[in-house]
Amino acid sequence: MATEGENEQVKLLGVTLSPFVVRVRIALALKGIDYEFIQETMQPKSELLLKSNPVHKKIPVLIHNGKPVCESTVIVQYIEEAWGSKAPNLMPKDPYDRAVARFWAAFVDDKIFPSMRGVFLGQGEQLQKAVEESVTNFLLIEEALRTNQCFAGKAYFGGDQIGLVDIALGGLSAFIKGLEKATDSVLIDPEKMPLLSAWMDRFCKSDGVREVMPDFTKQAEFISTRRASMISPPTAK
Amino acid sequence: MATEGENEQVKLLGVTLSPFVVRVRIALALKGIDYEFIQETMQPKSELLLKSNPVHKKIPVLIHNGKPVCESTVIVQYIEEAWGSKAPNLMPKDPYDRAVARFWAAFVDDKIFPSMRGVFLGQGEQLQKAVEESVTNFLLIEEALRTNQCFAGKAYFGGDQIGLVDIALGGLSAFIKGLEKATDSVLIDPEKMPLLSAWMDRFCKSDGVREVMPDFTKQAEFISTRRASMISPPTAK
Repeated sequence: MATEGENEQVKLLGVTLSPFVVRVRIALALKGIDYEFIQETMQPKSELLLKSNPVHKKIPVLIHNGKPVCESTVIVQYIEEAWGSKAPNLMPKDPYDRAVARFWAAFVDDKIFPSMRGVFLGQGEQLQKAVEESVTNFLLIEEALRTNQCFAGKAYFGGDQIGLVDIALGGLSAFIKGLEKATDSVLIDPEKMPLLSAWMDRFCKSDGVREVMPDFTKQAEFISTRRASMISPPTAK
Repeated sequence: MATEGENEQVKLLGVTLSPFVVRVRIALALKGIDYEFIQETMQPKSELLLKSNPVHKKIPVLIHNGKPVCESTVIVQYIEEAWGSKAPNLMPKDPYDRAVARFWAAFVDDKIFPSMRGVFLGQGEQLQKAVEESVTNFLLIEEALRTNQCFAGKAYFGGDQIGLVDIALGGLSAFIKGLEKATDSVLIDPEKMPLLSAWMDRFCKSDGVREVMPDFTKQAEFISTRRASMISPPTAK
């Protein structure tokens, strides 16, 4: 079992603009865990990445005392469990509340992110369709914030403190805001989704989050450049 | 917090041939939890299903003392945590081993199942492509059984006992075997995947599993009928 001690070696392999890497950085910041951030080059992928995550070959990878942990939602739960004695708790204590948290974290990965990926990749009608799908999904989150007894009336999905669902969804904040700007779309309409919109503002300004959240304008520029390169890829010289 | 007691009311909403329902039934059987199985009609979906899982409207749903838990992997972890004092443990104790278990359970949901869904839906070239993708994914599992220190040389992914990964992957056994028969394909070749093949045989014969695992021939017939109806849907009279 991993030892919680002073001599731990914690490395995070990633890139600063990746929403999945942002999730892990938030969890590490909240728990007050020191780590070395290793910038992944991606093209080509580093030997460390290929060796640490041979199955998916994707960032982020957390390397704790030489042992790699992959997949952001898995990593966040690992951080909670490996540094269990460190406040704050990123997971509720009650089994039912934990199941609700895992359900909504999975909803972000299985529904929210794919629909946003559609916005990122889409043009014309396909873009419009992906925007509508994203809005439908965000409305389900608004509804959960309004009616789910685990979330309603609380500052965060985690209650008074940021937890798994906040990190899973909130880690995507700059990506969402950047996508809205880059595609001139409205994904989270403050009028239609007042609770979600207010939550995102609150989340992005909170301690441990604002320090690692990418700048929205910078993220929008990155997304615009990538989208433009997909329409007319740079020709080889 | 849920109380572990004699007067608990546990209901499972599902259909017997669903691999995701099979997962939950295995977890309940292993933990020795009595429950009422409520057969879901699906067409149309029952009011209980729509009320219990308004987000996805999918089975299985575990209803524990009136509170619904959705999504099979979430449910299995809930069962482990809500009945934590009941043996066997479906999750390892060590945080790193737990992360490895969650990683591979997610691999089954994110890679294995979508490729098998491709086999289920595919015809001709698309079927062939989906079979190849499935084989690639199963080979990664074979490799994990051979080299991953958490799994190598052990009877189950969970060690001496069945755990989360066994349930996630093994719950699909009848679906895999049925698909092989219905599409005349080889997905798990015992020669190329001796460890995976032997594990699946062992898993399907084990206590708590064999009682709820659908009959392979019946599953194959169901899949064949569904595949035939997709090619030439029954006309309205």
